[in-house]
Amino acid sequence: MKQILSVLPINENQKKQLQQAAKKVNANIVFSSYENVTEADVQNSGCVIGNANPDFFQNATKVKWLQTNSAGTDQYIAKGILPEGTILTNATGAYGTAVSEHMLATTLMIIKNLHLYRDNQNKSSWKKFGSVSSLKDATVLIIGAGDIGLHYAKLVKLLGSYTIGVRRRAFTKPAFLDELHLSDEIDNLLPRADIVASILPGTVDTEKFFTARRFSLMKKSAVFLNTGRGSAVDQDALYYALKNHVIAAASIDVTTPEPLPASSPLWSLPNLVLTPHISGGFHLNETMDNIVNIACQNIDNFFNNKTMINEVDFTTGYRK
Amino acid sequence: MKQILSVLPINENQKKQLQQAAKKVNANIVFSSYENVTEADVQNSGCVIGNANPDFFQNATKVKWLQTNSAGTDQYIAKGILPEGTILTNATGAYGTAVSEHMLATTLMIIKNLHLYRDNQNKSSWKKFGSVSSLKDATVLIIGAGDIGLHYAKLVKLLGSYTIGVRRRAFTKPAFLDELHLSDEIDNLLPRADIVASILPGTVDTEKFFTARRFSLMKKSAVFLNTGRGSAVDQDALYYALKNHVIAAASIDVTTPEPLPASSPLWSLPNLVLTPHISGGFHLNETMDNIVNIACQNIDNFFNNKTMINEVDFTTGYRK
Repeated sequence: MKQILSVLPINENQKKQLQQAAKKVNANIVFSSYENVTEADVQNSGCVIGNANPDFFQNATKVKWLQTNSAGTDQYIAKGILPEGTILTNATGAYGTAVSEHMLATTLMIIKNLHLYRDNQNKSSWKKFGSVSSLKDATVLIIGAGDIGLHYAKLVKLLGSYTIGVRRRAFTKPAFLDELHLSDEIDNLLPRADIVASILPGTVDTEKFFTARRFSLMKKSAVFLNTGRGSAVDQDALYYALKNHVIAAASIDVTTPEPLPASSPLWSLPNLVLTPHISGGFHLNETMDNIVNIACQNIDNFFNNKTMINEVDFTTGYRK
Repeated sequence: MKQILSVLPINENQKKQLQQAAKKVNANIVFSSYENVTEADVQNSGCVIGNANPDFFQNATKVKWLQTNSAGTDQYIAKGILPEGTILTNATGAYGTAVSEHMLATTLMIIKNLHLYRDNQNKSSWKKFGSVSSLKDATVLIIGAGDIGLHYAKLVKLLGSYTIGVRRRAFTKPAFLDELHLSDEIDNLLPRADIVASILPGTVDTEKFFTARRFSLMKKSAVFLNTGRGSAVDQDALYYALKNHVIAAASIDVTTPEPLPASSPLWSLPNLVLTPHISGGFHLNETMDNIVNIACQNIDNFFNNKTMINEVDFTTGYRK
């Protein structure tokens, strides 16, 4: 049965695009939503597009392929969620523009003291904070130089920064990276960076990657960014590093847990810019266009037995 | 008498650079500061470098040339300040990096809702605001496409925006401007822009240039920036436009008067990012290097009777 279920929140054009892709492979596609989709809907489908409730998949033996709308797939690769043999593809590549622009925005906000000026505005206070720095003089270390990381590297390179990428596996260095290193060199790189940006996914290997020790290796003037997963950061160590000025400032869009409880001491750190996991999502129009493009290509790949793009390795959580 | 007085807050390297420039023309240079310089110091000098108290110049008939450290010279071109015949040169060109990066930072801050997220952080609130926009899709109108305006145009062009420059006098369009227009076309351009950036100086002609009528010509979604002079904006009209969502948001680094009184209703507008005239100043190291370079070139020009750079026309307040 060539039955595709989409739960993506899409517009009419995007719907048409998916319908055309399904038609080309003689498949039937039905459209639902996160809110309305049922366990039965999932169980009756051969393919699911979009992040339907993970619990709906446990007995969904007909489902041969799940295309997520997220880059992270933590909730689906966990044991006992997807029936064995299910192909899992993610939306890596869809979030590059959205997340990298958010990262650039918070980087500039911090190095220009705009978070502190906003606080002062709310006190009607005309007070100058003095020195700022420039991206022209900055060395930017990008930890997790995948799609989003490389988008961010490209942006800061355009604005004059020196860019160092770090990745788990070797790959060809693009021109907008000044240096490319493997993950095991990280401790030698941290002391060199003015901006340390983490886009690490949530996997067993990245759990509390940023420890007190690693924060202490950074410059006292360093700015730390995290738009990957909150689990990659020892949150107590981050709190300590900011509170005691081990590093100068940070911007995090991801926390553990999410939502971050109102009782967390992180909220009230003036040198932390904290946003509620909004850098990605579908907050930028372009993102959903990208997701639909990936899904359409994979509809073609799946039904023609071609190599799927963005297939996830269940043991690492990364693409194969 | 070849007596130069500098009141710039400079470092040792910059001091040396000025001393070498003075030596080359057999002039004597003395160093003072804004705080310590006296009226007598100014009166005994042939040339003054830096924004010494305007009141000190009224009887300073020996002063033949004043080099300001600011781009704006409003306080020196006013009648009765400088003795007739004094050459006035400004620091146009020194602030391009500093102010344009500040403008880029506030532009991104606003279109990514980061000012609102900062307010929510201070309430420990994990709430998402939804849609954001991208500079990739933005038409940016730069009103006052001089040094700072062109620096800003270059930055947003690098990030994918469509750029329209507006200037008082015709000049050759640089490649990073998609369109170039003269000031009298402004009312036809305002409805097209997603970002309207004013870098207009404070002159008789620019007084309250941005009226209620001009705000109403802008898109409802428009973001307005002002890093020129507060006098170019009808501040009541800006308040009304933001309060009543005639435009979406604004960022202003300049106000009338400065400091802005704590009683001003502008402070409490959530859709206004208000900073205390800090985009320029000497908050970025590069700025003072640029000012010293301009001063050194003009020391050479002045004593060798060559054409001065950045000479100000007292009737317009612009460079000749």
